Amino acid sequence: MDFNLWGTPDEAKVLSPSIKKMLVKMLGVTDPQPRIPAEDIRLAPVRLSESDLSALEGIVGAGYVSTDHDQRLPRARGKSYLDLLEWRRDHEVTAPDAVVAPATDEEVAELLEWCERQHVAVVPFGGGTSVVGGLNPREGNNRAVISLDLARFDQLEDVDVVSGLATLGAGLSGPHAEMKLAEHGLQLGHFPQSFPYATIGGYAATRSSGQNSAGYGRFDEMVRSLTVVTPRGIITPGQASPATAAGPALKELFLGSEGTLGVITKVRVRVHPIPEAKIYEAFSFPTFTDGVNALRAVEQAGAGPTVMRLSDEIESSVNLTSTDNIGEQDESEHNGCLAITVFEGTIQHAQSRHQETRALMLAHGGESVGEGPARKWEQGRFGAPVLRDSLIDAGALCETLETATDWSNVPALKKAVGGALAKTLVKDGSPALIMCHVSHVYAEGCSLYFTVVGAAGEDPTARWKAAKSAASEAMTGTGGTITHHHAVGTDHLPWMGREVSVLGLQILKAVKKQLDPAGILNPGKTFDLNAAAARESAERSL
Amino acid sequence: MDFNLWGTPDEAKVLSPSIKKMLVKMLGVTDPQPRIPAEDIRLAPVRLSESDLSALEGIVGAGYVSTDHDQRLPRARGKSYLDLLEWRRDHEVTAPDAVVAPATDEEVAELLEWCERQHVAVVPFGGGTSVVGGLNPREGNNRAVISLDLARFDQLEDVDVVSGLATLGAGLSGPHAEMKLAEHGLQLGHFPQSFPYATIGGYAATRSSGQNSAGYGRFDEMVRSLTVVTPRGIITPGQASPATAAGPALKELFLGSEGTLGVITKVRVRVHPIPEAKIYEAFSFPTFTDGVNALRAVEQAGAGPTVMRLSDEIESSVNLTSTDNIGEQDESEHNGCLAITVFEGTIQHAQSRHQETRALMLAHGGESVGEGPARKWEQGRFGAPVLRDSLIDAGALCETLETATDWSNVPALKKAVGGALAKTLVKDGSPALIMCHVSHVYAEGCSLYFTVVGAAGEDPTARWKAAKSAASEAMTGTGGTITHHHAVGTDHLPWMGREVSVLGLQILKAVKKQLDPAGILNPGKTFDLNAAAARESAERSL
Repeated sequence: MDFNLWGTPDEAKVLSPSIKKMLVKMLGVTDPQPRIPAEDIRLAPVRLSESDLSALEGIVGAGYVSTDHDQRLPRARGKSYLDLLEWRRDHEVTAPDAVVAPATDEEVAELLEWCERQHVAVVPFGGGTSVVGGLNPREGNNRAVISLDLARFDQLEDVDVVSGLATLGAGLSGPHAEMKLAEHGLQLGHFPQSFPYATIGGYAATRSSGQNSAGYGRFDEMVRSLTVVTPRGIITPGQASPATAAGPALKELFLGSEGTLGVITKVRVRVHPIPEAKIYEAFSFPTFTDGVNALRAVEQAGAGPTVMRLSDEIESSVNLTSTDNIGEQDESEHNGCLAITVFEGTIQHAQSRHQETRALMLAHGGESVGEGPARKWEQGRFGAPVLRDSLIDAGALCETLETATDWSNVPALKKAVGGALAKTLVKDGSPALIMCHVSHVYAEGCSLYFTVVGAAGEDPTARWKAAKSAASEAMTGTGGTITHHHAVGTDHLPWMGREVSVLGLQILKAVKKQLDPAGILNPGKTFDLNAAAARESAERSL
Repeated sequence: MDFNLWGTPDEAKVLSPSIKKMLVKMLGVTDPQPRIPAEDIRLAPVRLSESDLSALEGIVGAGYVSTDHDQRLPRARGKSYLDLLEWRRDHEVTAPDAVVAPATDEEVAELLEWCERQHVAVVPFGGGTSVVGGLNPREGNNRAVISLDLARFDQLEDVDVVSGLATLGAGLSGPHAEMKLAEHGLQLGHFPQSFPYATIGGYAATRSSGQNSAGYGRFDEMVRSLTVVTPRGIITPGQASPATAAGPALKELFLGSEGTLGVITKVRVRVHPIPEAKIYEAFSFPTFTDGVNALRAVEQAGAGPTVMRLSDEIESSVNLTSTDNIGEQDESEHNGCLAITVFEGTIQHAQSRHQETRALMLAHGGESVGEGPARKWEQGRFGAPVLRDSLIDAGALCETLETATDWSNVPALKKAVGGALAKTLVKDGSPALIMCHVSHVYAEGCSLYFTVVGAAGEDPTARWKAAKSAASEAMTGTGGTITHHHAVGTDHLPWMGREVSVLGLQILKAVKKQLDPAGILNPGKTFDLNAAAARESAERSL
C-alpha cells in the first residue's frame, strides 16, 4: 500500500475509454489531481528526544523504533477520500513522532506504562486502512504521539480444530491469517473490501463486516475473546465459554473500541473448514424494492446464503460487478437491479440453501441471470478502492459511505441519504453519480452502501465535507446508524452522541477513565467522548 | 407460583411408585421435609414510615404500594433448592419492606430518585424465578429495601411485522408475551424451563437461554434494544440499527446486569412467524461421547435444528424425557444416550434441516428411535421444577447446575464437575443420582446441565452448599463458565472474579458508579463487584 494510494502503483488501473467518457461527458471531470511525491512532503519535526527513543528501544528492542520519513509518512493518515485529497494538497504534514513495534503483551504493557509516565500519546496501527480518520496522529494533552505498530503480532497462536477456534495475532493481515489457517484446512471467511491490507486487530477494533457476513457473520460475531493490553492491565474478556450468563459481556466494550480503551494484541475467532462446495447465482429484479423484499424473505426464512447483495438501478446499470468494465455494456446487463448470491459448505448444505434461496428469489419477482455476474463480482471484489485511486488521479470525487436500518425503514433511509447527497453535490451544478447497494443482511434489516462519483470541484475537500455532513444528518435523522462497518474515527464523531445518547457517552467515558486515566490512547478522536458529548449537550440545550 | 414452591399446589405431582422406590431403596430418602405454612412465618418488621409509604404512593398511585404479608412473602426469596429448603426451616424471614409497582418509565425514574434521596435500596422483580439468590432483599448501606415489581409493564408496545421486531413490556411473562405476539401470527420462540413464570425483563437481565436456542438463539441474541431506567437517566442502547460499527455495544452491559445498573422496563426483540411445520426425531447413541460428536458435527455444519439436546447414560436410563414416568422403563429406552431434535419453519426449510441433521446423526453412530421421545420431551418440558417440589417434600435433595465450554473441553469439564458432585455428596455415605445433559449447542461448544437427586441429609443446606461449591470450583478450574444461563445472583458471586478478572470487575464497578453512584440497585449482591473483587484479590495475594 503506497502512502498516498489505497493500492500500490503496480495495481493502478488504466481507466477504460468508457469510464473516461463517463467522467468527462457526464460528470464534467477535466483536471487531473496529481499526487505530491514523498520526497516533496515535509513531516512535522520529531518531538521525542534521543533519550526518549533509546528508552523506547529499551522496551521493544533495537530496530523497532523508527523516526524515518518513509516510516512516519504512511502512518500520518488513513485512506478516506479526504485523506487522499490531502496527500495531493499538503506539502507539510503532521505525522506520528515515531513508529514503535513491540512484539509481546509484556512489551505493549511496558510501552503504555512508559507513555503514560512520559505523557506520550499512542495510536495503535494495524493495516492503516481507516477511511474515517481513525489514524490521524493527535497528541491530546500529551507532548508527542507514537504509532504503535502491531506488525510483529503475526502468529497463528493456536488452533483448536475440534472446537473450531483459533487465536490470531492482531497484526496479521486478512490474507496472511487465511494462509496460516489454510494449513489446517480452515478459514475465517472474513472478506471486507480492505481484506488485502487490514488486520485481525483492526477488524475487531472497528467491528468490521465482510462480504460473506450473511454466512459467517460480522467480525464482532466471529470473535470469541480478545487479549487487550490497557494502561491498567491485560484483560481477555470472553475466554471462559462460547456463551455465559456471568454478567455483562465485557468483550463487547473492546469490540469497536478503536484503540481508545486498550491495544488489542490477539483475537480468538471462530474458524470453519474450507468449504467443499461453492454455488453461485445472480438474479435480476425489476425494482430495488422488489429486490429488497426478496432479500428480506430469504434472510427471515433463514435460507442461508453465504453472500447476498443487491445493487440499485443506477449501480446495476453502470455494471459495478466488474471494476475493469465499469460503465461498459455487459451481456448480463438489465435495466433492473442485480442481486448476487453465493452458497458455501458441504455439497448437500450448499445445494439445499441454494434451492431454498432461489425459490424465494423467484417468488419475489427475481429472474435468474446465471452464475456469471456472481463469479465476476467475486473476482473483482477487492478492486473498487484501487479504481478509486485512478479516478481521484483523473480529477474525480470518489467516495463511499454506509449505514444500516430495519427493513421497514429501508426505503425512507435510502431516499433521505441519496437525496442529501444529490442535493449537496448537485447544488453547484456538477452532476454526480450516486449508487447504492445492500451488502449485509440481517433478520431485522440490512446495510445500505452508497458510492458517489463526480467531479472533485474547485474546493474538493469542502465539497465532499458538505455532502458527507448532509448524508450523516440524513442517516441519524432517519433512523439509521451513522456507520455500519467503517467505524467512528474522527469523521463520524459529531454524530456519535446522537446515536448512543449522552448517558451512553458518559458510560464509555467512565470505562475510558478506568482503563486509560491519563488519556494516552487515541486522544481527542475516534469516539472522543468529550467532543461527542459536548456537541450533543449543546444540541440539547438549544 | 406459591411462595414456597416452584409451581402451584394444584400442579403438585404425586410421586409414582417407581420414583418412591428409587428414593427409598437407592437414595435412602426417608424423612419428609414439610413446608411451613404462610401464617406461621413472621417477616422482619417494615422499616418504612407512613410518610415514606405515602410518598411512594404519590409516585406510583394508590393501590400500588403494599406492605401486606402475602405480598412481601413471595418476594423474600427465589426458587433455588436452598431457597425452598429455607422455607421449610425458618419461621423468621427477611423480606422487602414494601412492594412497589410503577407503571411508566417516568414513574420508575421518579421512584429511583426518591429511593436514592431516601437511602432505600431497590430489588427489581419480574417473575421471581431466580435460582441463584438474585432476589434476596439486601439493603446494603440503605435503611430499607423495596421490591420494584414490573408487573404493570405488561404491554406489547409495538410490532414491526416487516422487520420482525416487537417491543414487549418487561413484566410480561413468557406465555403472556407469546399470546400477544400470536395475535399477529408471530412468536418469540424463547422457552426456558422458567417459561411459565419468568418475564421478558428477567430474561434480558439474566441472559436467559431457552430450549429452542439452537434455532432462535439465546435471549441476549434476540434482544435488539432495551429501555433501561437508571438513577442517572433513561437509556435505550441498540436502538439505531440491526448492526453498527458505532463503538462498543452498550446494550451488552445491560444484558446480564441483573438489576444492578438499572431497571429494564421494555425490551425490543426479534420475532418470527409461527412456524408452518414442526418435525421431531430422537436418536440413541452408544455413548455420550458419540452423541456429543454428532451434536458438534450438526452444529458446525450449520445444519439448523431448532432444538437439539443429548442426555448422558444415567439421565437417559432414568427416562427424564417424561417427568411423570421418571425412573420407569420405557418402550424407547436403550442403554445408550438419548438425543432429541426438533425442526421448525416452512415445510421445505424444516425438511431440509431435518435431512441434513439426520444424515449427520446417523453418520456419527446415532440410531433413530422415532419421534415419540422428542414429542414426549416437549410435552413434559416445563415439568421438572414442579417435580422437584414433590421430591423436596418427600425428603430429597434435588437441584440443577449448569456450565458451558468448548467442544474440546467437554469431556474434561463433565468429568470434573460430575466428579466434584459425586465426591462431596457421596462422602457421607448417602448415594446420589448425578445426571447430565447438553441442552444448548454452539459452533464452538455447548452447555452441560447437571441434575442431582439424593437424600437431603441431616444438614441439607450444608450438604448442598458443599457440593455446589465443589462443582463451582471444578467449573471455573476446568475452563467452564460459572453459569451458562442461570446468572450470577448471590450464589455464583464468589466465582465471578475468577471468570471476568479483577480488571473486568473494576470496569463493571466504574459503570455501576456512573449509573448508580449511591448504590441503591441490588446492593451487596448479584455481581456485587466489591465482594467478588475482594475474594479475587485475596486469592491473588495468597
